[in-house]
Amino acid sequence: MAMTESGYVEVRNLHRHVGNTVTLAGWVETLRTHGKVAFALIRDGTGVVQCVLAKKEVGEDSWEAGLQLTQETTVEVEGVVRADARSPGGYELGLVGLRVLARSEEFPIQPKEHGIEFLMDHRHLWLRSTLQRAVLRVRSEVMQAVHDFFYEEGFTRIDSPILTGSIGESAGTLFSTDYFGEKAYLAQTGQLYIEAACPAFRKVYCFGPTFRAEKSKTRRHLTEFWMVEPEVAFADSEANMRLQERFVSHLVGRALERCREELEILARDLSKLERVKPPFPRVSYTEAVELLRSRGSQIEWGQDLAGSDETLLADQFDMPVMVYNYPRAAKAFYMKENPADPRTVLCNDMIAPEGYGEIIGGSQREDDLGRLLARIREEGLPEQAYSWYLDLRRYGTFVHSGFGLGIERTVAWITGRSHVRELIPFPRMMNRLSP
Amino acid sequence: MAMTESGYVEVRNLHRHVGNTVTLAGWVETLRTHGKVAFALIRDGTGVVQCVLAKKEVGEDSWEAGLQLTQETTVEVEGVVRADARSPGGYELGLVGLRVLARSEEFPIQPKEHGIEFLMDHRHLWLRSTLQRAVLRVRSEVMQAVHDFFYEEGFTRIDSPILTGSIGESAGTLFSTDYFGEKAYLAQTGQLYIEAACPAFRKVYCFGPTFRAEKSKTRRHLTEFWMVEPEVAFADSEANMRLQERFVSHLVGRALERCREELEILARDLSKLERVKPPFPRVSYTEAVELLRSRGSQIEWGQDLAGSDETLLADQFDMPVMVYNYPRAAKAFYMKENPADPRTVLCNDMIAPEGYGEIIGGSQREDDLGRLLARIREEGLPEQAYSWYLDLRRYGTFVHSGFGLGIERTVAWITGRSHVRELIPFPRMMNRLSP
Repeated sequence: MAMTESGYVEVRNLHRHVGNTVTLAGWVETLRTHGKVAFALIRDGTGVVQCVLAKKEVGEDSWEAGLQLTQETTVEVEGVVRADARSPGGYELGLVGLRVLARSEEFPIQPKEHGIEFLMDHRHLWLRSTLQRAVLRVRSEVMQAVHDFFYEEGFTRIDSPILTGSIGESAGTLFSTDYFGEKAYLAQTGQLYIEAACPAFRKVYCFGPTFRAEKSKTRRHLTEFWMVEPEVAFADSEANMRLQERFVSHLVGRALERCREELEILARDLSKLERVKPPFPRVSYTEAVELLRSRGSQIEWGQDLAGSDETLLADQFDMPVMVYNYPRAAKAFYMKENPADPRTVLCNDMIAPEGYGEIIGGSQREDDLGRLLARIREEGLPEQAYSWYLDLRRYGTFVHSGFGLGIERTVAWITGRSHVRELIPFPRMMNRLSP
Repeated sequence: MAMTESGYVEVRNLHRHVGNTVTLAGWVETLRTHGKVAFALIRDGTGVVQCVLAKKEVGEDSWEAGLQLTQETTVEVEGVVRADARSPGGYELGLVGLRVLARSEEFPIQPKEHGIEFLMDHRHLWLRSTLQRAVLRVRSEVMQAVHDFFYEEGFTRIDSPILTGSIGESAGTLFSTDYFGEKAYLAQTGQLYIEAACPAFRKVYCFGPTFRAEKSKTRRHLTEFWMVEPEVAFADSEANMRLQERFVSHLVGRALERCREELEILARDLSKLERVKPPFPRVSYTEAVELLRSRGSQIEWGQDLAGSDETLLADQFDMPVMVYNYPRAAKAFYMKENPADPRTVLCNDMIAPEGYGEIIGGSQREDDLGRLLARIREEGLPEQAYSWYLDLRRYGTFVHSGFGLGIERTVAWITGRSHVRELIPFPRMMNRLSP
């Protein structure tokens, strides 16, 4: 039997081989014996199949080997594919041969409850469990959907640098490193860089890891997380919100279309996802504050929304809600002043339903050189570090807008998982740097 | 005329509007005047269109505004679309109105020769130039082709962490940062992490930025570059090489299919790309050394190939060449010992034609716990940091292989550009951390 990848049939393709004898390789999830018949669930990474091992079919050696199978032992099995509606995946394998490729002793993660720190310490093995596989399959699909959306819409992908001498938003939450004698920071956003690419490509996006050295231990915070950031020339804040609702609907629709099995494993209420279609409800910041206060929040006009405010607000809608035009003081320096009310800026957040919190922050960018420079000075930011960014307002400035969507929070919402640590293969948090 | 993105026609869509009056917005590349007619090339990020401004058509105000246009001034123009084979892109716009949205004074990059350091200092503006736009469009297309290839092949995307407590290959070339009192390193590879995901998903890949704190100033080195790394369970070194040649052919084919205009702007010899189809030539390391020595190289068996050796070897072939089974001492600890010749390991590099050097390094991984542990000790690596990696050999170990392909070197070859600094939007090199 071939040892190479190409020699094995994949479980996801078993439907093509009903009635035939195939060979596959994988890992033992469970083994049950009933007299002279044993049932092994074998996972090959493309699916899980029940294998039926009957002593009279396989001979003494394979039967004895079968009885010794331990969890996560690597096996090669040969058998006849049978359609069986009771089996997971709808097919089972009637074995004619079994060979142990590598024995596994006492796999640390047993089919029982483990504490979260134990599971996180064994993340490299925990990945094999049913729920984690389902969650990360959805993540993978959503990330491809991100690329496909922007590709179809004619965006150019512009990768922004991680190592940067200048500063994104607030130096207090930046990781830094020695860069051949200079100090470099790990980027919190690629936005400023991709703004520079708009006059070259009009519609651009970046999608990569971003870093926040925040001492937060909430279920919504990672120190390293993936963010996708589009930026569009000649798009104002209104156009920006329209892009956001189309984009988020696309991601949800793609998960519903292509990850139904995973969402069912995760027991996600699909009806709550199926209603996610444009247009999304919109409320101005000022309206949101009134609404929150009428529902008991202590928020004062001028303050940013607390997590509890976001949840309270989201509960008023059964769709993601866009809150627009926040007070200038609560937001970043690069957001465009609202001509109709200069206390506010032309921006919006998108808050996911069901308490999953903010998944998007976006804005129209300040395109006026004088106002932008004044804001940089007002915030006490190092003007020199932003000189190249200011150049974009010197040489053919233009109306433009963009936003950032956090992948882990978005996939937490789509999969219905409560903590972002499960939504990334190897989470990094304040107390977690390994494995 | 609308100020939002949706209000403007895009240059790439002009063919749909022949005979109609449209409004578009963009930046002035050049202006020529002939008496009472002026010709402006306008770039809107989706293409470049020649705009014809006739004094008698547009009236005094627009005519005067037109004569004042400077390079990179942002304009809104209204005009009739005409098919014109002599115009770039095949269409021109007979203007009926012109409005300056934002004037640009003395754009630093003029249509003349500038020194490379000047251009690199103005990377945020240099991106707008014709060649740089063409190069980065090819990069964007190739990156989408990477995702599409693995998606179509049933791979799961597994993002590996950048911040890591353990160490990839050699600590001397790692950037480090303080991580809440611990020391963290910026990852050079995601391979070790995605190996852990193979028993969950069988075929996986990561694709993100990687970091090397190397004091190299060659045309092939960046300190931050993008690498795609697939990893496949039950694939041996042979299967790994087959995957590589299919993958690289796919990327080249995609660029030929969808970036022909850009490759023509770059004056790329397309015949050299069109012949890139599997199977690629393969030579063992031992054969390569003999061949190189017969052509004058001083290489001794046991040494890694120098850059000059790679070029000499590549010149013997008109396709990418795969050199396999290098001496163990020249390669990383995780590569599987070759059972047929234990002085060597089951690995391969892929060397691009025309002197573009190594674009892939790959191997079958050591799946034997004892041998892997011995290699870790032999190299003096911190055993504790690799304990989770060793777990993968304890709990159902399996044959597996993978490789890493560097995006910038690959796109340098495809586009025919000599220095990797042009192949990434914001290059990071030993003396270059901004913009």
